[in-house]
Amino acid sequence: MTYCVGMMLDKGLVLMSDTRTNSGVDNISVFRKMFTWQEPGERIITVMTAGNLASTQAVVSQLEERMKEPGQRENILFEAPTMFNVATEIGKLLRSTIGERQSANGARGQGKFTASIIVAGQIKGMEPRLFMIYPEGNFIEASLDTPFFQIGETKYGRPIIIRGYDREMSLEDGVKLLMVSFDSTLKANLSVGLPLDLQVIERDTFEPKHQHRITHDDTYFQTISAGWGDALKHAFHSLPDYSFYRED
Amino acid sequence: MTYCVGMMLDKGLVLMSDTRTNSGVDNISVFRKMFTWQEPGERIITVMTAGNLASTQAVVSQLEERMKEPGQRENILFEAPTMFNVATEIGKLLRSTIGERQSANGARGQGKFTASIIVAGQIKGMEPRLFMIYPEGNFIEASLDTPFFQIGETKYGRPIIIRGYDREMSLEDGVKLLMVSFDSTLKANLSVGLPLDLQVIERDTFEPKHQHRITHDDTYFQTISAGWGDALKHAFHSLPDYSFYRED
Repeated sequence: MTYCVGMMLDKGLVLMSDTRTNSGVDNISVFRKMFTWQEPGERIITVMTAGNLASTQAVVSQLEERMKEPGQRENILFEAPTMFNVATEIGKLLRSTIGERQSANGARGQGKFTASIIVAGQIKGMEPRLFMIYPEGNFIEASLDTPFFQIGETKYGRPIIIRGYDREMSLEDGVKLLMVSFDSTLKANLSVGLPLDLQVIERDTFEPKHQHRITHDDTYFQTISAGWGDALKHAFHSLPDYSFYRED
Repeated sequence: MTYCVGMMLDKGLVLMSDTRTNSGVDNISVFRKMFTWQEPGERIITVMTAGNLASTQAVVSQLEERMKEPGQRENILFEAPTMFNVATEIGKLLRSTIGERQSANGARGQGKFTASIIVAGQIKGMEPRLFMIYPEGNFIEASLDTPFFQIGETKYGRPIIIRGYDREMSLEDGVKLLMVSFDSTLKANLSVGLPLDLQVIERDTFEPKHQHRITHDDTYFQTISAGWGDALKHAFHSLPDYSFYRED
């Protein structure tokens, strides 16, 4: 499994992904699921992937045309005029990649090669945008009503984002919120694992403001993980106690 | 979907279930998923069900032999010498009920008629016990290592139970913890809905210490739901802030 979140704030985009892939619990590997392309001062596009690894790697390779010789490669992401076009192109690649695998595998492959992709970024002169692309290649865009997208193992870490999100929060608080959400998920589900990849894209800068790989010995993440348990207990005890002899 | 939790504390058992059943989002009903049988001073047995409603209702009806005329009914739960036997009998009924439906439906029914059951209770002279029964009829028992079971839509409400559970906590705090867990789930998933059924079984009493149906206008639940949002935000802000200029 996987857990990736893309979050849209007024000040920019905060993105986080885990790196665990597993084919059964006895076959665990570390693979990067966050990929960035940038043209300094012009555009930055970051993609996070969940689902069948061979399919998502194939999509990323096709985006970079890695099947061609180095001299002949070009990245279609640099040509797309808008983020909407970027999402459309990636959606096409995802649908065709999954379609090929499914048909090669026949009916047996039902659902096996599914994958989803979060696309985030900004092109100069336009707003930062955030999309979630479905296996069918269609996609939705984040809005004020739905300002974040999760893919993969989304449920454990969802309540805290729903409760904690505020579009006016600082980028630093956005990072802290995703750390808590990932910590809750890591504590509950073995298929999501460290290290985590973090990227912060500030509005109108077209390069990552901050990039960081969070490993087991990351002191800030350790502090959050330990502190959140205590903070939750404190929050729990701050609520009024239940009484078996209620009047209402 | 459904959400039910059975939690074993030193002082007894705390059980909570929702009541929403749905067949699509446009066909929502309220059905009780918690059922109790008691022989005062001798035994109390409570069952919570998740999964295909027709299957779980069939199991409960068979437990009570409701297919017979009233005068001829007897409840096998009152005859079982131990809670282990109770779980075994319910497991058999669940497996055979699901098996009949699956075979009547042929291969098309793959997975459609699945169901799980939590069984909790105590028989005089023995310890309180808590079991989770799988659709296959086999089951596991709660222990010090795994002192609570969830069935249905389990993921949203799991992190707070993992963080907040303490076997020495009071029964009242157990109720509060489950209220928070259910509130997180209700906020994230439409398929789990109010009202909730709550039951508290104190060790060695063989009758419910407390039973309550939590409806939309339950003032305590409203207080917890509103207060938890604020308490979480406070907990979040009590954690150290992230800095983009870290040294580690």
